[in-house]
Amino acid sequence: MTTVTAYAAPAAKAPLERTTIERREVGEFDVLIDIKYAGICHSDIHQAREGWGEAIFPMVPGHEIAGIVAEVGPGVTGFAVGDRVGVGCMVDSCRECDNCKAGEEQYCTGTGMVGTYNALDKNGEPTYGGYSQKIVVDENYVVRIPEGLSLEEAAPLLCAGITTYSPLKHWNVGPGKKVAVLGMGGLGHMAVKIAHHLGAEVTVLSQSLRKQEDGLKLGADHYYATSDPKTFEELAGTFDVILSTVSAPLDFSAFLGLLKTDGALVNVGAPEEPISLNVFPLLMGRKTLAGSAIGGIAETQEMLDFCAEHGFGAEIELIRADQINEAYERVLASDVRYRFVIDTATI
Amino acid sequence: MTTVTAYAAPAAKAPLERTTIERREVGEFDVLIDIKYAGICHSDIHQAREGWGEAIFPMVPGHEIAGIVAEVGPGVTGFAVGDRVGVGCMVDSCRECDNCKAGEEQYCTGTGMVGTYNALDKNGEPTYGGYSQKIVVDENYVVRIPEGLSLEEAAPLLCAGITTYSPLKHWNVGPGKKVAVLGMGGLGHMAVKIAHHLGAEVTVLSQSLRKQEDGLKLGADHYYATSDPKTFEELAGTFDVILSTVSAPLDFSAFLGLLKTDGALVNVGAPEEPISLNVFPLLMGRKTLAGSAIGGIAETQEMLDFCAEHGFGAEIELIRADQINEAYERVLASDVRYRFVIDTATI
Repeated sequence: MTTVTAYAAPAAKAPLERTTIERREVGEFDVLIDIKYAGICHSDIHQAREGWGEAIFPMVPGHEIAGIVAEVGPGVTGFAVGDRVGVGCMVDSCRECDNCKAGEEQYCTGTGMVGTYNALDKNGEPTYGGYSQKIVVDENYVVRIPEGLSLEEAAPLLCAGITTYSPLKHWNVGPGKKVAVLGMGGLGHMAVKIAHHLGAEVTVLSQSLRKQEDGLKLGADHYYATSDPKTFEELAGTFDVILSTVSAPLDFSAFLGLLKTDGALVNVGAPEEPISLNVFPLLMGRKTLAGSAIGGIAETQEMLDFCAEHGFGAEIELIRADQINEAYERVLASDVRYRFVIDTATI
Repeated sequence: MTTVTAYAAPAAKAPLERTTIERREVGEFDVLIDIKYAGICHSDIHQAREGWGEAIFPMVPGHEIAGIVAEVGPGVTGFAVGDRVGVGCMVDSCRECDNCKAGEEQYCTGTGMVGTYNALDKNGEPTYGGYSQKIVVDENYVVRIPEGLSLEEAAPLLCAGITTYSPLKHWNVGPGKKVAVLGMGGLGHMAVKIAHHLGAEVTVLSQSLRKQEDGLKLGADHYYATSDPKTFEELAGTFDVILSTVSAPLDFSAFLGLLKTDGALVNVGAPEEPISLNVFPLLMGRKTLAGSAIGGIAETQEMLDFCAEHGFGAEIELIRADQINEAYERVLASDVRYRFVIDTATI
């Protein structure tokens, strides 16, 4: 076991504080990673505050991890010391179910995927995430960060990037398609960049026009405020796909009206409360409301390669570890452009 | 104008009563149909009682119409006097939008489709439905009832048949696919028959096992009660497609758990109130909640030909016109096996 410094929530809703945790010895197929940067995802806050249900404490959040390989087990074939690597939302899965075999480990139907934190690993030990200085992960759940991407701008891609890339690809967003990105936060700003580089015509639907300039700079072709009722008249029947990145309960019924016939509203946000839905807008135009969760390991690598090829990472605000609690409040207030990333040297 | 006898609701929630209405003269492209049978659809009741919002009165419901051509306009090319024909939920649409051109007139984005009743036609005149002795319809919105089908068993196909056939085809239900039919009423019993003849493995999910024997006879392979919590454990992750035919608000979240990864819960029921939906089950397995409304005119003809080829119509209870109000109460109590059909000779 190795003792490493980390930031943890000692209990639900308690502020995070500096502590130490134990990491397992490096096993045959394990990679020890010196974590350099860890992104702050809205879901870290949901979990640390038990917004999604009972959680495991102390909790070290963080599933947007970028670092350097410091040691590898004897059976490791894919990585060597010094490699630039990332870890996202999962560190294991059953590896035997149809979904695991198909590279869709995030939908593992065997044991279920093992979350990077707030989960129990195969030995029944709690997992701890990226707000720490080191992590030990089986190499099958580690991805390579291409040279063209800085580690700090790559970290948020491990959740915000793949969570938007995967559904945009699955629902065939590309040239000739009109896509709307709902919400202009950590996930939303990545969705704009990715959809733009996939060749689609991109519209941002945000509460206000406050971030319009940024949105257009990141690749959006159009920008509308959802607080303006005229938006819903003007854009009725416009989009092939709407990707909702909002994690507050929304009136999806209104947004379904903005889809073309056979259009899909794909939700990657995870509000804590059930939503209310009028089903008529689904019937009238054979529309779908769908969900999508992160992406598989191979697809995460594909996404990183895509971002490197097109020369973009996330837009970030680099913070010290002692700013985490303040950053949480700012995330809740939508006051971040567009992802906080912790410099783990400050833990 | 021609005066014809009909049954109409004089006002919202008032009992239906015998009356007369005026039908337009037979125009150049019109077909005059002697209505022989008209099915009673749950949506007749929703509309006659203004459950879906403000309606037009007096209202002559009925969009499951089977009859014989009595006269054709000089420009009619598809039908001749004596032909066995049907009319479903629409009697016109814009004919110019992409959806109309693609044979998806039910999703007309121009004027919107013109409902067979409770709508205004192109001249601004109210439309009146099938609870009457004659109707005049443009030939483009009339379909042919094949010889193998009796008119009374064919009538319900014009709504209950196409409403289930269209999504089953669109979501590729067939050999090798597992489909669940939710609800064993007018629509549900047709969905069972159609899915069975499409070659799928069919499971009925009904509130109780009361209609199990019928369900298995009509083609279901399995039959489960949704009132039994064990159903949800046993069938978790089973289905490619669930077709919900229930028009009461349901807990869709629970049914999403019965889908495989990438499965679709397709809803053709139209509850009067919004539903409450937990979005997590959509995320976990990239599932979709979709809607579908009837089908296009060409697809309605395809469905009738399919039913005739496989030798089945609807299971019906033939009633007299003076039993309509009683039948409405029995539909609301799920006390019909499985579709009331009015013998219009009794109007």
